Amino acid sequence: MEVKTATEQKSLLDVLSPGKRTRLRRLLFEFGPGNGALMLLPIDQGIEHGPRDFFPNPASKDPEYQFKLAAEAGYSAIACQIGLATKYYPDYAGTVPLILKVNGKTDIPPSDEALSTTNASVEDAVRLGADAVGYTLYVGSPRQDEDLHQLRGVREDCERYGMPLVIWSYPRGREIEAKGGRDSFYGIDYGARLAMEMGADVVKLNYPKLNPDKDKDSPAPYNEANFSEEEALRHVVESAGRSLVVLSGGSRADDEVVLAHTRAIMEAGGSGVIFGRNVWQREWSEALEIISQIKETLLSHVRRLP
Amino acid sequence: MEVKTATEQKSLLDVLSPGKRTRLRRLLFEFGPGNGALMLLPIDQGIEHGPRDFFPNPASKDPEYQFKLAAEAGYSAIACQIGLATKYYPDYAGTVPLILKVNGKTDIPPSDEALSTTNASVEDAVRLGADAVGYTLYVGSPRQDEDLHQLRGVREDCERYGMPLVIWSYPRGREIEAKGGRDSFYGIDYGARLAMEMGADVVKLNYPKLNPDKDKDSPAPYNEANFSEEEALRHVVESAGRSLVVLSGGSRADDEVVLAHTRAIMEAGGSGVIFGRNVWQREWSEALEIISQIKETLLSHVRRLP
Amino acid sequence: MEVKTATEQKSLLDVLSPGKRTRLRRLLFEFGPGNGALMLLPIDQGIEHGPRDFFPNPASKDPEYQFKLAAEAGYSAIACQIGLATKYYPDYAGTVPLILKVNGKTDIPPSDEALSTTNASVEDAVRLGADAVGYTLYVGSPRQDEDLHQLRGVREDCERYGMPLVIWSYPRGREIEAKGGRDSFYGIDYGARLAMEMGADVVKLNYPKLNPDKDKDSPAPYNEANFSEEEALRHVVESAGRSLVVLSGGSRADDEVVLAHTRAIMEAGGSGVIFGRNVWQREWSEALEIISQIKETLLSHVRRLP
Amino acid sequence: MEVKTATEQKSLLDVLSPGKRTRLRRLLFEFGPGNGALMLLPIDQGIEHGPRDFFPNPASKDPEYQFKLAAEAGYSAIACQIGLATKYYPDYAGTVPLILKVNGKTDIPPSDEALSTTNASVEDAVRLGADAVGYTLYVGSPRQDEDLHQLRGVREDCERYGMPLVIWSYPRGREIEAKGGRDSFYGIDYGARLAMEMGADVVKLNYPKLNPDKDKDSPAPYNEANFSEEEALRHVVESAGRSLVVLSGGSRADDEVVLAHTRAIMEAGGSGVIFGRNVWQREWSEALEIISQIKETLLSHVRRLP
Amino acid sequence: MEVKTATEQKSLLDVLSPGKRTRLRRLLFEFGPGNGALMLLPIDQGIEHGPRDFFPNPASKDPEYQFKLAAEAGYSAIACQIGLATKYYPDYAGTVPLILKVNGKTDIPPSDEALSTTNASVEDAVRLGADAVGYTLYVGSPRQDEDLHQLRGVREDCERYGMPLVIWSYPRGREIEAKGGRDSFYGIDYGARLAMEMGADVVKLNYPKLNPDKDKDSPAPYNEANFSEEEALRHVVESAGRSLVVLSGGSRADDEVVLAHTRAIMEAGGSGVIFGRNVWQREWSEALEIISQIKETLLSHVRRLP
Repeated sequence: MEVKTATEQKSLLDVLSPGKRTRLRRLLFEFGPGNGALMLLPIDQGIEHGPRDFFPNPASKDPEYQFKLAAEAGYSAIACQIGLATKYYPDYAGTVPLILKVNGKTDIPPSDEALSTTNASVEDAVRLGADAVGYTLYVGSPRQDEDLHQLRGVREDCERYGMPLVIWSYPRGREIEAKGGRDSFYGIDYGARLAMEMGADVVKLNYPKLNPDKDKDSPAPYNEANFSEEEALRHVVESAGRSLVVLSGGSRADDEVVLAHTRAIMEAGGSGVIFGRNVWQREWSEALEIISQIKETLLSHVRRLP
Repeated sequence: MEVKTATEQKSLLDVLSPGKRTRLRRLLFEFGPGNGALMLLPIDQGIEHGPRDFFPNPASKDPEYQFKLAAEAGYSAIACQIGLATKYYPDYAGTVPLILKVNGKTDIPPSDEALSTTNASVEDAVRLGADAVGYTLYVGSPRQDEDLHQLRGVREDCERYGMPLVIWSYPRGREIEAKGGRDSFYGIDYGARLAMEMGADVVKLNYPKLNPDKDKDSPAPYNEANFSEEEALRHVVESAGRSLVVLSGGSRADDEVVLAHTRAIMEAGGSGVIFGRNVWQREWSEALEIISQIKETLLSHVRRLP
Repeated sequence: MEVKTATEQKSLLDVLSPGKRTRLRRLLFEFGPGNGALMLLPIDQGIEHGPRDFFPNPASKDPEYQFKLAAEAGYSAIACQIGLATKYYPDYAGTVPLILKVNGKTDIPPSDEALSTTNASVEDAVRLGADAVGYTLYVGSPRQDEDLHQLRGVREDCERYGMPLVIWSYPRGREIEAKGGRDSFYGIDYGARLAMEMGADVVKLNYPKLNPDKDKDSPAPYNEANFSEEEALRHVVESAGRSLVVLSGGSRADDEVVLAHTRAIMEAGGSGVIFGRNVWQREWSEALEIISQIKETLLSHVRRLP
Repeated sequence: MEVKTATEQKSLLDVLSPGKRTRLRRLLFEFGPGNGALMLLPIDQGIEHGPRDFFPNPASKDPEYQFKLAAEAGYSAIACQIGLATKYYPDYAGTVPLILKVNGKTDIPPSDEALSTTNASVEDAVRLGADAVGYTLYVGSPRQDEDLHQLRGVREDCERYGMPLVIWSYPRGREIEAKGGRDSFYGIDYGARLAMEMGADVVKLNYPKLNPDKDKDSPAPYNEANFSEEEALRHVVESAGRSLVVLSGGSRADDEVVLAHTRAIMEAGGSGVIFGRNVWQREWSEALEIISQIKETLLSHVRRLP
Repeated sequence: MEVKTATEQKSLLDVLSPGKRTRLRRLLFEFGPGNGALMLLPIDQGIEHGPRDFFPNPASKDPEYQFKLAAEAGYSAIACQIGLATKYYPDYAGTVPLILKVNGKTDIPPSDEALSTTNASVEDAVRLGADAVGYTLYVGSPRQDEDLHQLRGVREDCERYGMPLVIWSYPRGREIEAKGGRDSFYGIDYGARLAMEMGADVVKLNYPKLNPDKDKDSPAPYNEANFSEEEALRHVVESAGRSLVVLSGGSRADDEVVLAHTRAIMEAGGSGVIFGRNVWQREWSEALEIISQIKETLLSHVRRLP
């Protein structure tokens, strides 16, 4: 038996329950690019980093900015916490799908022992008409015991209600920093597999950064430093198996990097991108411009049918 | 063409919670005619009347027939019981919205004391990815006490989960038969108001039949027999207030009747039709033909923005 | 679109949840004939009729007789109530699958308003290691409101635990007697559809008996008396859609009738038989002999892949 | 009274409840070697160690590899976490039994205070049609108080649902490292007894390693260093009493070691093996080859009837 | 010989609820010595110390040894953890009463902050037909807050189900070591009172050891070192008030010591002994011999009517 490439995975939709299938299909085919690729807009930076992220584009401080952008530019979904979902989403109900983020934290304390506790429930998501739930898992954190147990409850509720589960799978904490770091190929590859094993339907990953100096602290074979970025990306997508992979953006980068990463994740068999600051830290027309380019890139590089 | 509301009602969507709004909007604008009119396909006759309804068009005995019809002809939603929702809907998940009927009964016993108990739950509807729940209320039945109390539970769950509630509001039982009958203007007008007062988001009504012989047993002013059908229809739509009204079809009628009723309900300020036998008792191409005419009629006669 | 014959139904197993699939597959392929046909042994007559059924073969009064028969003759499963499941099944745990019947009643009162209340739960079935649950539904009984609501709870638990649901779908009560009777094509056809619509995975039906004198009281088109037995049987199997149909035996009949009915149900697209008295009212070696013939008939007449 | 050898234990199946008996019998006699020996395939390394274990045989990264192997090579069961059970097992439902692992953790943090919290429930296992539940107990960890209490809940649910409980009984944490280490005869012997006392039906143990240098830190009589490996193995099997013992494999070893360990555990009165990396880190045909040899060894060395 | 109570306590049985009275009376008068004295056999050392305790008498490793001993030598009850209660007790159900120990831990980590979490429930005890529940309380441990709170739940359940509560009342942890130690008169006297105050029906205590060197660290008046062993023992029995006191044995001692301690506890107004290793670390006939002597001593030294 030969290993399948990620793009030869059995369709995820085929193995989902009817409720998950109905909802996820909406993100994949009814909204956004519409060809099975996901273009997601996250607006959870206000809790994760605080308002500092809004200064580069003052208009972005008003959540209307992101909601309007998501609806008008044709996103697959917008992802936010309960407060925005309660106070801003209702005006956009039905015009752009909602991913309710159910846990979060500030970055005021250090993340040595990172843990995000839930501030909302899957039932909140159902009640609000959301089409998916988002959960941040801190892979390898010293408090992983609490994290994995908490995720169990969220996953069980997702199964009970037929709600797709999107896991923000982030290596974090002092131990991973000692083994290559949060952006290491080792950490992200582990995160991809862990999220899939814990029941993610969609996994949100950061772009793995190869760094021989730090990677030498990772376990074999990651410490051997002979992987290309392309290989690393393909590996993490494969580690997620039937779970769909979307690439995180992180802080604002050049247009070429944004589009190159979009291309790279799709060519590796991924299913889309979830770029926040890279989009909404731009003024309206500039934002529309980069979104249009991202969407076009997604459309032209799909390699996997979800 | 400008749409002006017949009933001058405030938009229903404006007063709904975000979950109900998201889901109902889907039926009104994303699927079906798409202009705020509802074209619903019911396939609950197998339990309400038994398989005898399928003999005129043997193909209709296989539930695939109705699901395929609903998806391919572009319906706003298909309405069925839990068994079909579980065993047939999954193949159509996301391609046509689902209204889960949560109560029902056979017509083997007489309907003197009609009551339909629940055979499924609003949580079943959530789990399956349905966009609304259907409930049959037997208006004026001697067992209305049980009925209204049972409906309370369904309505409460609809509110809890943000699930639109469609009430099949049917005058039934020996008492209404003594006061004009199940199809009387009196009975249907009462049904429209009762359903709205009990929390319906959408009310399914039969076409009121004016019949001086029987109407004389109705209370005043219904017994005065000086209403036109058009007036009666406008009255029942107004009685439903902000709840949307869809017209039931009943047993198969001539094409002209079907389309005339469609026109009439829309001109009266209603929001659409839910015709079953009139559609799926026809052979496939004939069915598509009448559906196309119904849809066109709905599109050209919308008078109320939901 | 042409109507599919029953044998062209989509595989039932394909639409079942993993738990139901695992358990039902066991009955269909690991035990019994092993080719997707069901040969079930019911031993619920002791409650339904009392010990009078055991007199023709005194050995059959000891439940060991039926359990031993089921295990040694290679049945797909044995179906019984909680007492036998608790006191006799443990010795056969793992050697023949168990279908736990969760409701039942004596036949001392008349069945004009038949209703079987639950005397065991789906959780009992899980705890005992059963592979399916059996429920008797009295189609068209004046107490159908209680019956359908009670069945809802059983069905929901079956879905929660991944337990296949077998419905004994029996027209019963004074109303059906006035419309052709419990064995009428009308009644049984209605029962097949109702069970499927209520969520049955397997439907247990009696052989429809055509009787012009009584059928004239059934609604059209059943009162037209121009159906052959073969057509009637094919109709009831089609009415059950994706649910599998097994044929009940009833009181003891001649060998030729037993085998002819077995052949007939399989040729109509059914999935097997559940004969009790026809088997265990025979002395051990005679019982083995007829079982062997039944099994052979099942094996050679399978027309539908479950 | 003379002490019985492990092989003279009363049959475990005889003391189990019907549900546990039905399910465990399936693993022991219907699947796998089929003579009462267990050949289990674990695929929980993706969470316990991360994807690094898949590099030696890239095909093994796709969970299909292990599921296909388990089904085609005739394993007694496959053991995995909830994500794989949900997304990959359904395709194999009924073709190979499932052991749902209900707790787990990454190995990014050190195991000084090891604790694996539950990420799934016994009810998940029932729902998925699993035939047993797996739990990792970290014997002697400073957090044993949380571990034993958590295990209580899992065990109680196993009893409630008739689900066999397999305990991965692993000495772990800084204290055991100071008393001979995780692989010491002392630690493993304690683990065998503790698992049995906590209600395990099957205990998964590592092969005890005699190491005079480290064993001198174990309490008497383990520090006397005069045990042979054979004696140690027989002791740990006896410590598990009526609970069945299966031997873990650990990282990949030579064929001779794999088979020698298989032989040793069976001769000591154990009930089988659970080798993961030793099997699926091999290319398909090589894997089949070693599996065939393991199965033959199991078959020819059974000394205890379960 | 008339029995006169040493402590002149009112009979405990008189103040117990009917359920507790029924069950405790069974231990006091139907089994064991039968005159109100308790002769209990503990077999929880396998979890508390590991299998090392079984080496002196290899036969004792098989739990059958202790169960058989308890039944054949006529014990008042056998005390064990859930695993033995589930897998070995059923064979002895009704032939010797069961005390289900509901908490426990290994001794691999140090006991500086000792806490035994529950691994079974009072409901387990009811289900298994046990006549009492055992709980280990670590008197004065830094984690006493968790311990006392956990005990509350066990006691409440004991009251709910009418189940006698036996408290293993053991001073433990770094703080008591600094105040005279776990075997000090101070510690044990405190333990007797605490257990009684927390709701024990029976208190299991170690023999207080007077040790001027260590007792000087105890608070006054315990640090004055002028108590005789006999006085100390009488004090601790009085501290337990109406709760019955049984004496623990600890590691194996000479026959004279065993019998002297038995005599001493009875003369001090205690109600019996619970010797484990002192009994079952002996070969079968030797064990029977010492048991016979213990029983005789109990019978001849009863001074208190329970």
